[in-house]
Amino acid sequence: MLINKFFIKLNIYYIQKNKKIDMKLTLEQAQKAVEAGIKKSKELNLKMNIAVVDAGANLMAFNRMEGAWLGSIDIAIKKAKTSRYFDMDTGEIGKLSQPGKSFFSIEHSNNGLITFPGGVTIEHDGEVIGAIGVSGSSVENDHQVASAAKKAIS
Amino acid sequence: MLINKFFIKLNIYYIQKNKKIDMKLTLEQAQKAVEAGIKKSKELNLKMNIAVVDAGANLMAFNRMEGAWLGSIDIAIKKAKTSRYFDMDTGEIGKLSQPGKSFFSIEHSNNGLITFPGGVTIEHDGEVIGAIGVSGSSVENDHQVASAAKKAIS
Amino acid sequence: MLINKFFIKLNIYYIQKNKKIDMKLTLEQAQKAVEAGIKKSKELNLKMNIAVVDAGANLMAFNRMEGAWLGSIDIAIKKAKTSRYFDMDTGEIGKLSQPGKSFFSIEHSNNGLITFPGGVTIEHDGEVIGAIGVSGSSVENDHQVASAAKKAIS
Amino acid sequence: MLINKFFIKLNIYYIQKNKKIDMKLTLEQAQKAVEAGIKKSKELNLKMNIAVVDAGANLMAFNRMEGAWLGSIDIAIKKAKTSRYFDMDTGEIGKLSQPGKSFFSIEHSNNGLITFPGGVTIEHDGEVIGAIGVSGSSVENDHQVASAAKKAIS
Repeated sequence: MLINKFFIKLNIYYIQKNKKIDMKLTLEQAQKAVEAGIKKSKELNLKMNIAVVDAGANLMAFNRMEGAWLGSIDIAIKKAKTSRYFDMDTGEIGKLSQPGKSFFSIEHSNNGLITFPGGVTIEHDGEVIGAIGVSGSSVENDHQVASAAKKAIS
Repeated sequence: MLINKFFIKLNIYYIQKNKKIDMKLTLEQAQKAVEAGIKKSKELNLKMNIAVVDAGANLMAFNRMEGAWLGSIDIAIKKAKTSRYFDMDTGEIGKLSQPGKSFFSIEHSNNGLITFPGGVTIEHDGEVIGAIGVSGSSVENDHQVASAAKKAIS
Repeated sequence: MLINKFFIKLNIYYIQKNKKIDMKLTLEQAQKAVEAGIKKSKELNLKMNIAVVDAGANLMAFNRMEGAWLGSIDIAIKKAKTSRYFDMDTGEIGKLSQPGKSFFSIEHSNNGLITFPGGVTIEHDGEVIGAIGVSGSSVENDHQVASAAKKAIS
Repeated sequence: MLINKFFIKLNIYYIQKNKKIDMKLTLEQAQKAVEAGIKKSKELNLKMNIAVVDAGANLMAFNRMEGAWLGSIDIAIKKAKTSRYFDMDTGEIGKLSQPGKSFFSIEHSNNGLITFPGGVTIEHDGEVIGAIGVSGSSVENDHQVASAAKKAIS
């Protein structure tokens, strides 16, 4: 049984190295991330929208805390998608999309991107397997909550 | 304490009768509905997308079970919205949107409606305070899971 | 070397049975499907648009034959997406979306679906890992070309 | 035979001068451009999305390399379209769409433009007959790959 588990892990690692597969984000992981985000939000006395997408950038889990900004539903989802679309935190993209920078106006693609902080990738053995998007407060708070959600499943 | 609770209930009743407030759907209720839907889906061996919207028809909670149809993300959310938009189960609207019927092609409004079963209202003292949308299987199964989700918070 | 390959195959099979991973569609497979579709179209003297999406319903490869209908660019892509969205051939969905049927007007979801034949799933060990969409002629011809494209990588 | 070829060339030249026709981009050319782009990307160890549109700014060929950014599917296609829309490389348009410049916010037109480098025109005898869009890395790399793709069919 234990040996079995060990071999499965070894095999998954081996196959991944050969780039033949992607690990799948589970619903349990997505829920755990959302819960951790809500817990952090309560600690900070914030009301947040929290979204999780999988490797295909498709929505997996979402929660809006009571009284959280309605406009942040779409922003949280778009942050999660944006982060997975480019395999980096949304704040990093935002640095490059300023006037005069190389990705200026990238937000017009993909039916609307959100490029300020609050979107973070979910990784497994160096591969991005999903992303988390948080919206409802300052970008610093959004990012902090998203990071707490990520940490809970890392 | 007990008397206190009684007076609060009385007050809520009184205020509601006078239409000054709507009871608000809590995140806890929304989560409970989603959980009940997932539990029912597992019993029936189904993979579902489950969405909950509040009185403003705005997304409150969403979960996609692993392996559930990707196209049902949008359908589950649209079913929940459609149900709250017209304060009835989506299947009822679908009867009226058939060719020759009074609401034919109503699906073109509101950026896309879904008018087949799987969307049900959430009520409190006769007022609609939100709705649940389920998608991932036959409309009969979708409706059954949505009903189980509704029952868990009624 | 040969033993290695055998073990990898065995392992992938074993891990997949345990639903921990998805096989990834390769670009080589996507290109091969497109090529086979073009070859079949030429045999039948047709001008087609051929699209391939991966497991996340995201575009992987596309070709438009010279003189093929311009309106079929979007239809071919939507057929591929629709097929992956519901893990079935588009024609099957179309049977259910007719007036009076259970999925009537489902086309209003997901930013527009195409539910007539020409979209087929790509499978690996019973899991859908992508889909092919073909548009440019009658639905019978579209489906025939899509099937030829699928066969080339099955 | 040789004389025949000469006369055809002469005729094409004559007709073009009189602006009665546009040379049409062939699917073979579009595929050749995509292949050259992929070859260059591999040399540079990059994962790219490569799109080719014809004179009508309609998609002709597209390939996404495995592991390339999902958000770059739309960007590659939009770069190709943007380039053909204004018959210049996307980077040139981007210089004019900066704050204070004459085309500021032009990205809001045409359902979304991409105005940073990576989109290049395809020309024939001084006429633009299509365009190539590449996305998946820095704008310098995107432009380099797009240029290699263009060169392969020039």
